[in-house]
Amino acid sequence: MKFLTGEMETTTKEIAEILAGGLDGEEVKVNGCIHKIRKMGEVAFIILRKREGLVQAVYEEGAANVTLKELAEEAAVEITGIVKSEERAPNGFEIRIHKIRILSRPSAPMPIAVNKWKMNTSLETKLDFRPLSLRNIRERAKFRIQEGVTRGFREYLRGCGFTEIHTPKIGARGAEGGANLFRLEYFHRHAVLAQSPQFYKQMMVGVFDRVFEVAPVFRAEKHNTKRHLNEYTSLDFEMGYIESFEDIMQMETGFLQYTMALLEREYQQELKLLDVSLPKTDKIPQVRFDRAKQLAAEKYHREIRNPYDLEPEEEVLISRYFKEEMDADFVFVTHYPSKKRPFYAMDAPDDEKFTLSFDLLFQGLEITTGGQRIHDYAMLEEKLQQRGMTQEGMEQYMLVFKHGMPPHGGLGIGLERLTMKLLGEDNVRETTLFPRDLGRLEP
Amino acid sequence: MKFLTGEMETTTKEIAEILAGGLDGEEVKVNGCIHKIRKMGEVAFIILRKREGLVQAVYEEGAANVTLKELAEEAAVEITGIVKSEERAPNGFEIRIHKIRILSRPSAPMPIAVNKWKMNTSLETKLDFRPLSLRNIRERAKFRIQEGVTRGFREYLRGCGFTEIHTPKIGARGAEGGANLFRLEYFHRHAVLAQSPQFYKQMMVGVFDRVFEVAPVFRAEKHNTKRHLNEYTSLDFEMGYIESFEDIMQMETGFLQYTMALLEREYQQELKLLDVSLPKTDKIPQVRFDRAKQLAAEKYHREIRNPYDLEPEEEVLISRYFKEEMDADFVFVTHYPSKKRPFYAMDAPDDEKFTLSFDLLFQGLEITTGGQRIHDYAMLEEKLQQRGMTQEGMEQYMLVFKHGMPPHGGLGIGLERLTMKLLGEDNVRETTLFPRDLGRLEP
Repeated sequence: MKFLTGEMETTTKEIAEILAGGLDGEEVKVNGCIHKIRKMGEVAFIILRKREGLVQAVYEEGAANVTLKELAEEAAVEITGIVKSEERAPNGFEIRIHKIRILSRPSAPMPIAVNKWKMNTSLETKLDFRPLSLRNIRERAKFRIQEGVTRGFREYLRGCGFTEIHTPKIGARGAEGGANLFRLEYFHRHAVLAQSPQFYKQMMVGVFDRVFEVAPVFRAEKHNTKRHLNEYTSLDFEMGYIESFEDIMQMETGFLQYTMALLEREYQQELKLLDVSLPKTDKIPQVRFDRAKQLAAEKYHREIRNPYDLEPEEEVLISRYFKEEMDADFVFVTHYPSKKRPFYAMDAPDDEKFTLSFDLLFQGLEITTGGQRIHDYAMLEEKLQQRGMTQEGMEQYMLVFKHGMPPHGGLGIGLERLTMKLLGEDNVRETTLFPRDLGRLEP
Repeated sequence: MKFLTGEMETTTKEIAEILAGGLDGEEVKVNGCIHKIRKMGEVAFIILRKREGLVQAVYEEGAANVTLKELAEEAAVEITGIVKSEERAPNGFEIRIHKIRILSRPSAPMPIAVNKWKMNTSLETKLDFRPLSLRNIRERAKFRIQEGVTRGFREYLRGCGFTEIHTPKIGARGAEGGANLFRLEYFHRHAVLAQSPQFYKQMMVGVFDRVFEVAPVFRAEKHNTKRHLNEYTSLDFEMGYIESFEDIMQMETGFLQYTMALLEREYQQELKLLDVSLPKTDKIPQVRFDRAKQLAAEKYHREIRNPYDLEPEEEVLISRYFKEEMDADFVFVTHYPSKKRPFYAMDAPDDEKFTLSFDLLFQGLEITTGGQRIHDYAMLEEKLQQRGMTQEGMEQYMLVFKHGMPPHGGLGIGLERLTMKLLGEDNVRETTLFPRDLGRLEP
């Protein structure tokens, strides 16, 4: 009888193991994908692509068991050879090839040049060949940064006593209602895809006090802009026992600070590849919605057309204002008008036309919407009535409030948007692995 | 101008802070939900429910600013009082109440008794009142354990060089094909919900070598069993450059070992609440499919009816065999017949009727399906042809192989099923936050 013990028997070395040292002059085995073959007369440089980065291997005619003709870019190989320090090589070493074992061969040359530093193709082409274009090391680095953001979110919140939850994406109705719901048939019943985990995370505040979720959300919006997608990853949290809605913004600020430090510490290689400087998060200004509009209007001589909403151009101007006046990359805009917020938003006690809610703008773009929610059953019933809404289909949601809920609030962050702004990209598709939009259901 | 600095100003203490000591005899503020009021003549015990556990507070007539009548179970409160060591209280201390601030009140008494040790209701009732029944501390503890499993999966794999990815759940076609797809309309096109991230995680092996995803999957199966759901959370990984399909099982064994140690270390309180003993994972037997059938048939005098499939009862018997013979809670059953595995499964080189694939059985139930995949383009084309399948709609998937892929394989683990077996539950709905099945679209 054979047993699995969890111990992997590997004969190959990873880059980190070679960098850890002591292997100069030693023979090693390294596997990877042939990213590039550069012929230089008698010798050739064979650049391997590994998950950690690139490895330079040196091929000499006659010194290896295969001819150069047998090798192709994008073949998977295992190379045996001697490690030699070499300043000009990636990671400071190269491997003098003795032997190459071919693990797998491509059937055709690549339709796009993924081994160039910058891919010289349009976004459309990159997306058409997404599984291939991501093999470019700068393209893939974006999604390592994205992983870092998700890690930062989870690690920071867990440290603050939050519990991670998984809530259903198929449901009987949406949290926000309205027209932007994807509908499906569920065993002869009508169902919809979740626009947000809003109702569920609120329900779970009554259970765990503080919860978070990282999961897809679905919006059937007919937008075709650079910042909208029909499916994206939402970083959501909800926290109970808040003393003020500012607690939610403090929590988000803490998350941003933690995450920037994490990226700085563990994702340095990717930041360098993408030439990214991380934004400052030590203190983030907070400004009321109406005041923000006014400041931008005055400074940039722009007429306020609609006092109850923020146009995309105004978001840009408000961000510009705070960048110019106090060198701030982020700004919390608070007290959005009630009529622009969902029924569950808590109105400001001193002026019911406004809510205890906020958006976080990051260099001109909204990346978060959040706020305090109504926790009192009678208040919630009254709000629904005022809006002419029915409780039908919301019985379970209402039940939670009927039986007691602490003061609470939370927020949702668009992961791909936040990544886009961090990396200085101008289209959210650049930082979405496989985007879904009006035109794209594949790959 | 106000600024957010990430520093939360809290005046209240959490249980861990009080346990850290030095507060005996001191006045503290603690918030929480009134889980239970126990009247004992002149005094009353007010048990607070907090995310970390229960806190006992002692109310004396006249010593506090509110009367007992003003308090209700499930009210959210902030209690000010003196900490006193008390062996018989949860966590070894109680709080002598000076002052109670009521943060929120319920509008009606609870329809189910969540403050009992065991909830004396049927699963149906618990699910009908799910957002409330989860307030029971043993009910909620299940989902803390579930969080621990997810953490274990991510932490272990990240340590092994895997990158976390987020792949789309809406697509043009499913990875497995067939009848169990939920269909939806996507801007006047037909779309489906992902049955698994299979195609995407394979594509991403060409990019990052090793990837994982924790995300919902959707299966429109008309099963109505204790172990099937129509939406569940799948723990998926896929790894390149494997030397054998056993590498995948080693990786899973390593994950299980890491996770049991994590639960033991950081989720001790929940394990005790639920009276759970963790299974042994130090070495997991591995047995061929045909041999496993034979062993179970011989020992338990059961006729083999279908040599190409494993019936649920056989899974139970095989597990029983390995428990009895070698005290094993887990067993890897390998080499499933080709005709029962998807087209992308790699056939065994010595016998094409079988595949380099496996299921992991945990005390009688399949919790994982995995295996090596075909990485060679020509082999994949041939397999599709053999099966009479068309490449239509799979162009993007095929493209990845055409342009080179390393040998690779992976697996998917049903999170709720694994949690269910860990906790000794017999219905997967017990360990699903908000289950979706033939009858349940809400809550």
